[in-house]
Parts: sequence; structure tokens; C-alpha cells
Amino acid sequence: MQITSEQHLDDGLLEQRFTLDGVPGILWTPQRPGPLVLLGHPGGIDAMYPRLAGRARALGRLGAAAATLELPGSGERPRLPTVDAARADLRAALAAGRPVSADVVDRLILPLVDRAVPELRAAIDVLLARPGITGPVACAGGVIAIGVRLARVEPRLVAAGLFAGSFVPASILEEARAVTIPVHVLLQWDDAGNDRQAALDLFDAFGSSEKTLLANLGGHTGVPEHAGDDATRFFARHLGLAP
Amino acid sequence: MQITSEQHLDDGLLEQRFTLDGVPGILWTPQRPGPLVLLGHPGGIDAMYPRLAGRARALGRLGAAAATLELPGSGERPRLPTVDAARADLRAALAAGRPVSADVVDRLILPLVDRAVPELRAAIDVLLARPGITGPVACAGGVIAIGVRLARVEPRLVAAGLFAGSFVPASILEEARAVTIPVHVLLQWDDAGNDRQAALDLFDAFGSSEKTLLANLGGHTGVPEHAGDDATRFFARHLGLAP
Repeated sequence: MQITSEQHLDDGLLEQRFTLDGVPGILWTPQRPGPLVLLGHPGGIDAMYPRLAGRARALGRLGAAAATLELPGSGERPRLPTVDAARADLRAALAAGRPVSADVVDRLILPLVDRAVPELRAAIDVLLARPGITGPVACAGGVIAIGVRLARVEPRLVAAGLFAGSFVPASILEEARAVTIPVHVLLQWDDAGNDRQAALDLFDAFGSSEKTLLANLGGHTGVPEHAGDDATRFFARHLGLAP
Repeated sequence: MQITSEQHLDDGLLEQRFTLDGVPGILWTPQRPGPLVLLGHPGGIDAMYPRLAGRARALGRLGAAAATLELPGSGERPRLPTVDAARADLRAALAAGRPVSADVVDRLILPLVDRAVPELRAAIDVLLARPGITGPVACAGGVIAIGVRLARVEPRLVAAGLFAGSFVPASILEEARAVTIPVHVLLQWDDAGNDRQAALDLFDAFGSSEKTLLANLGGHTGVPEHAGDDATRFFARHLGLAP
């Protein structure tokens, strides 16, 4: 892990840009050692920076470090032509008002999941070895299928905060049945780019003994402040922090 | 309104039993004047007392008064033979594993709604005239159809916390479209006595510009503590109280 730049934010948080095996990322560490939350996003950490930094600040106030990695094929990383082709097919279907086929969803999402999850696990290895980060680990938001796979395969993950805001391959719905850690799913009830029934089916599928669905009115970017606060309290409960 | 008994609870809350036009009720008032939350229940305020008092204490700590009225046909009140007959039909259907017909739901729920809502509105008149209660008014829990009707017709109600734990007549689903105040719906995902899809349809129907669905794993009586805390914060937001 190579730190490429760092700055101290006004609330005592240290922000460090890094690359890990060529993947760009950002790490936010509060002044005291604490657990780690991996922040997801739809790809493009520079464009997403204001929202990511806002979530890192909220977690930092709780006492948790936060980190994010660029997605495969996004930002400065090499494009993934098959994923780009699937995205073009997706946009064409949406523009024509056609249903999005399972094949398009698989081609769009599964290559991201297959690449991103090992990268995230390698990042957990490296980040937990740093002095300011004690674990345990949670993940928050981003491409929901990545969160499901990570929750299924990564034993160091103790809680998953998921955002029902992207398409879910059928195989990922099956993987959700094997997830047993606590999950908190945010669903925007009127998210035009999302399939509400698929999100409800996914929530139903999780094998966790503690799961919460929090649905609010509004579209993809309209998550109300109180819902964000509720997700923060979910992390506090499961990372052993005072809310 | 006739006060029939009163006691001071250990956290500074005054609990007063009363009757209002022959309807028994309980009022909990904190030491400082504050808004009012009407607490719903499935009928039988004596059997429900521990849970009602627990919710009143949580609201009292926020600074809100709480009140509850016995339901028509429940507790010490005269039975409602047509509702009792519908309840027997409901139990027979559930015991036989048959679907519950819309007719049974209408006969069970609508007479309660038609009687309870005017009683609750009369109670609001009387309670808001008392020195310790300033308004605004919210309602919390109980028979969800009563909450929907009250939210539709009572202009002094500023927020409705609803529990998706009882059957919903089709006409009440239509009434929900005319509800515009903020609603917060608790849904127990595995509530055997409840129809999950009907609850999702009802949530979808509300005409409110702010609505939240909070679903958790578990049955009718398994609402987790954090979900109760979340409902309390909903009331704090809409009643102008610090959470």
C-alpha cells in the first residue's frame, strides 16, 4: 500500500489517498484506533468524493475509520469492455422502456463482483495491519451485489449496510441466503433506476438473524438525513461504538 | 373527562386513569407541558398496560404526554356482537388455513374505525384543553386502519407512527391515498398473523411526502429495541422535541 497524498480534515480526521496493487483508494482515520467501514460507491471515487468524505466524517465522529477503493473499470482504472458493453445494453433497454434482461444484469454486475471482492479482501488484510485500525470490519453502500458477496465470503465482516440501488443478478440473490451477519438495507421507494420488488426479494432472502429494511420516499439520491443517521447507528451497534 | 385514579411514576411522569363519555383511558403527563401522542393497542388496556406504560415513559423522557383509550368492544366496554362474530370467522379461517376474505376484514375492522376515530378526536379536544398538554398531536401503533382514518380526517395530527400488524380493509387502503402527514410504518417481516404484501401496498398508497417503512425480522411481538428507538426519534422530529 502506497500513500500518495494526505491531508488533515478539520474534525481531526486524517485523509490519505493510496494505491494498493495499482488500485486507487482513500483512507480516513480518526485520531484514536477504531474499527473499519468499507465505503461502497457506483464507481468513480473522484466524482463521488464529497459524498464519500461526508460518510467518512460521520463514521469518524463515531470512532470508526473508513476506506474506499476505486471499482474495477471505473475512474482512472482500465476500462472493462464487456462491462461497458453490458452498460450500453442496459441503457438502451431503459431508454426504450424495455425490461432489463437477466443476461444484461449478469454481464454488468458479476464481473465487477468477481474482481472487486478479492480487492476489498486484500485491502482488509493491509488496512487491519495499520496501527490506527483495530477491526472489526463492516461495509456500507455501493453496488449491492458486491456487498452481498463480501458478506458471504469475508469472515472478518461483522455487519453490512446495503443500498438497494442497483441491479441484482439471480445468483447473488441465492448467495444472500448464505449471509448470516446483520444487514441493514436502505431502499428508496421511488427509485426509478431500481426494481423495488427485486430489492424486497433480496431482503427476504438474507439468512441473517438480524435484518432491517428501511424504505423512504424518494429517488436514488434522495436518501433523507434521518435514514443516514439510522444507518450510522446500525454501524455503531455492530462495531461496538457509542452512537 | 373524569379522573378516576392517579399515581406518580418514578421518572416524574403523572399517570391518570380517566373515563371520557364512559370510555376508560389512561393519560401520562411529564412535568413540563408538551405535545401529545395517542397510543394505540389491539384492545384491552389493562392487559396491554405494561407495554403502553413503557411507550409512555419513552415519550415522557422526550417531553411528550401520552394517552390511550379503550377500544370499542374491548376491556370493560360493552361487546360489539357483529365484531365478535367477524373475529370468530377470522379465527376459523386462520385455523383452517383458508385465506381471510375481504368481507370478514371489513366486518372486523370498519366498525372499530367508525367508532374509535370520533372517540379519539373527542379525546384530543379534551386533552388539548388541559394545562400540561400543548399539542401538536401524533398517533402511535394500534389497529393500523384506525391510524389511517385518524390521519386522514384529523387536522391536528402532524405525524402517524403505524404498526403493520392487523388486517387492512380495501377502503382504508384507498383512504391512505388522502393521507399527507408524515408516516412511519413498522413492519415485522415474519409476522404470521399479518399479510406482508398488504402492508407494502398500504405503505405505497400513502400520499405523504415523507414516509418511512422500517421492516425487521421477527414476528408480531418481536419488534427489536432499535426499531422502537427509531419510532421514538420519528415522533421527536415531528413534535419538535430533542431526541
